[in-house]
Parts: sequence; structure tokens; C-alpha cells
Amino acid sequence: MTTTQTTRRTVLGGLAAAAALALPAATGTAAAATGRPGPRIGILLYDGFSLLDPTGPAELLSRLPGATVTMIGEHRGPVRTDTGRTAVFADRAVSEVDRLDVLLVPGAGNRGTVAAMNNPVLLDWIRRIDRHTTWTTSVCTGALVLGSAGLLRERATTYWAAAPYLEATFGVEYVPERYVRVGKVITAAGVSAGIDLALFLASELAGAEAARAVQLAVEYDPQPPFDAGDAATASPQLKELALRLLAESQV
Amino acid sequence: MTTTQTTRRTVLGGLAAAAALALPAATGTAAAATGRPGPRIGILLYDGFSLLDPTGPAELLSRLPGATVTMIGEHRGPVRTDTGRTAVFADRAVSEVDRLDVLLVPGAGNRGTVAAMNNPVLLDWIRRIDRHTTWTTSVCTGALVLGSAGLLRERATTYWAAAPYLEATFGVEYVPERYVRVGKVITAAGVSAGIDLALFLASELAGAEAARAVQLAVEYDPQPPFDAGDAATASPQLKELALRLLAESQV
Repeated sequence: MTTTQTTRRTVLGGLAAAAALALPAATGTAAAATGRPGPRIGILLYDGFSLLDPTGPAELLSRLPGATVTMIGEHRGPVRTDTGRTAVFADRAVSEVDRLDVLLVPGAGNRGTVAAMNNPVLLDWIRRIDRHTTWTTSVCTGALVLGSAGLLRERATTYWAAAPYLEATFGVEYVPERYVRVGKVITAAGVSAGIDLALFLASELAGAEAARAVQLAVEYDPQPPFDAGDAATASPQLKELALRLLAESQV
Repeated sequence: MTTTQTTRRTVLGGLAAAAALALPAATGTAAAATGRPGPRIGILLYDGFSLLDPTGPAELLSRLPGATVTMIGEHRGPVRTDTGRTAVFADRAVSEVDRLDVLLVPGAGNRGTVAAMNNPVLLDWIRRIDRHTTWTTSVCTGALVLGSAGLLRERATTYWAAAPYLEATFGVEYVPERYVRVGKVITAAGVSAGIDLALFLASELAGAEAARAVQLAVEYDPQPPFDAGDAATASPQLKELALRLLAESQV
């Protein structure tokens, strides 16, 4: 086996990357000194969240010009996912954050969702932050947390298996689309739908060309080898297997 | 505003969820006591990785029957992403892991990729682990790390902007597909392509029906509001903007 050593400054090819690295130094300096000047995006992490719900949108939204994406927890520190085997760091506690341009509430497994829906510290913070946001958003069962905070009106989407609960509990119509906007509240469908939501948010926050550049930056040209992600066309057997795999993998 | 309290045991609807929660208790007990019996999947985190590269595959692969997905770092503890603003926890150090069924090496920004390509501790560990894996895989510029470990042959894919570097440095053909398999080595394209790779791995590890259930479990029915993720059809201007946004957002 061979080990290739590289001393090249860049592995991202050619002229474009060279141009990218020739940014005015002031950009970086200003960002380091005062925080970046673009949208302040906050993602609420809570125990038992599903890993892709916050990380997909964070990956995309962090590329917007001047944007900051901050992971926020009830307390600072690692927050465990629904599998209990992975944690993402909350860099800020809710008590340290009182203004955001965009709030995103991810979904969780059953245990984490129910706990968040009954956590007055989180619900009060969500309501306080929502007063000043440009966009208040959710992914997956995060919609149920927004509902518990009293923020859903008329229509919403959520994880497909939570749709009956959403309608019965919050009196809103479940719309089986990737994301559903009602005023400044946008709910996204399950887990991976947060990526599509993030592209829409990107276009609203920074324009269509920036959104397209973000899509290219993450090479989001999806080509799943199966076509089984739509609950509307899934068999009862496949739905049951999906929910069983989820339940087995969650703590 | 109203706050809805829930005392329901499940928010994931109906009979299917009830069935899911009626799993034999032994499953959970065995998992807790001895580790789950399915594939051991390890994801290498290193400073400056791109957030979605490991978290997308981890979300999907963690749902496979009995699978464990472990985040592994040079040391235990938080590992910062390329933006410097988010960290994922490495629950194991490379020194603690000597066997995996699946190894996944994510990509990173330019700085993180180059550092990993020149880190003998990580490269030696990757080579040692690869001797016993069923699958050795990468996402995005993780292919360059596999290349530096001497593990690429014939063909590979990587982040679109790293393709010229890949070909020039490792003498392999760049194939612009979502993932490229050569023997047991599978490289995926940029960032979001790890999700498509994960579905392929799911089908290989647990069969097509389980892979389809995982796709439904994460509601992966992608419908991006733009169609800009394919570098082969992107304009030079869009490519340059994408690379500039990446460079600006990375530390």
C-alpha cells in the first residue's frame, strides 16, 4: 500500500477554488470578531432527537452568506439522539438565546417528542423566540412540539406516522407535502424533509441563486436506489416494518 | 396561546405503532447487556468534517436490525465541524476500536481533508480496520482520505470539485455517480450522497425490504425545490458561488 502525502494548499480543484480562497481577509476578520452579519439560525436540540433532523438543515443553512447556525439545548453540552449512541453538542443554553431570525425544532423518537411536548422550559422559550423570528420551523415530530407551544394554525405537516395525532390533538389539517407554510411557520415532513425545507429557507433568506449554490455545495442531486420514501404509497406491511425498526433502534 | 399536555404513551399513530411498542422485551435487554447483534458500523470523525457527511448515513444505518453505529475519533470527545460552530461527540477513540463490519470516512472542508490525509494515526487505523471490514466506504472528500491510506483502485467518486485532484493524485478514474463500488470499497459523491450510499449499504447488509423500510422510516422522498445539485450541468458561475460560500463558512 502507498501513502500519498500532500502539501497542496487545496484539494478542491482549479480556478474556482483558487478564487474561493482569495476572499477578502476582512470577511473572516469581521466574522471572527463580531459574529457573522447574516441570519441568526438556531436549532433546538433536546434529548432523544433524531440525528438527521437538525444536521441536514444545519449543513445547508450554514453555507448561506453570513449565516450563523447555533445548536441550542436546555443546557450546554452533549445532547443524545434517539439511539442513545450519538450526541451533538449544544453550544448555547436556551437561557443564553433571546433572539433568532430562524428557529428550527427537530423531531425525535416517541420518548423524546413526548418529553419535549411536556417541557415548560422548552415550550416557553419557543414561544418567546417565536415572537421575533422571521421563520419558525420544524422537522418531523418537531411539529408536535410547535403545536404544544400553541404555534400551529390551519395546516401543517409532520412525520407520516404522527399525522393522526397531529390532527386529533391540535386541530390542524395534515398536508402530506415536504413542507407546509402557514404565515411564518413552516413545518416539514419526516427526518430527511428538513433538507428540502432548508433549500426553501435558503431561497427566502438569501435568494434563489444562493439556494441553488447551496444545493450544489452539498451536491444534493438525490438518486435513492429505492423508491419507498412516500408513506402515501407504502404498504401497511412496510409501514409496520419501518415503525418496528425505529422502535427497536431507539432508547 | 394554548399549551397542550399529552399523557399518551405514543404520538406515532395507530396500530402499527402499538405493534412496534409490543416488541419482546428480550430484544432491548439483550441489546443493553451485550451490544446489538447486527452489523458494527463505525464512522470516523476528524476535525473539520462536514456535518451531513456522517450524520445522514448514521441516521439511516442506525435503523437496521441490530445495527450499532459508533462515532469514532482520534480521541473521545467533541469533534468540531468545518464551520467550527457545531460538534458531534466521538464516543470511542480509534485506539479502542479494532474491528468493524462497515467503516465510513466522511469528507471535510479543505483544511480538515488535508489534515486527515496527512495524519498517520488515522491512516494507519483506517488500513488496519479495512483488513477485516465487509465494506469500507467514504462520503465526499473522504475518498481522498481513503486514497491517502492506499485503498482506492481503478474508479471512485468524490466531491465534484475534488475530482481533478482525485484523478491526478491517486491515479483512479473519477466516475460522477452517487456512489461507486470497486470490490468492497464504496465511495460516495459530495455530502448528501452519503444518504443514497446508506440505502445501498442497507440493502446489502439487511436486504432490500429492510432498506425500503429504512427509506420510509426517514421519509426519504426527496423533492428539492430547485434542481441545481448536479455539477455536470451547473454553470461555472454557480460552481464558483458554491465554492465561495463553502470557503466563507469554513474555518
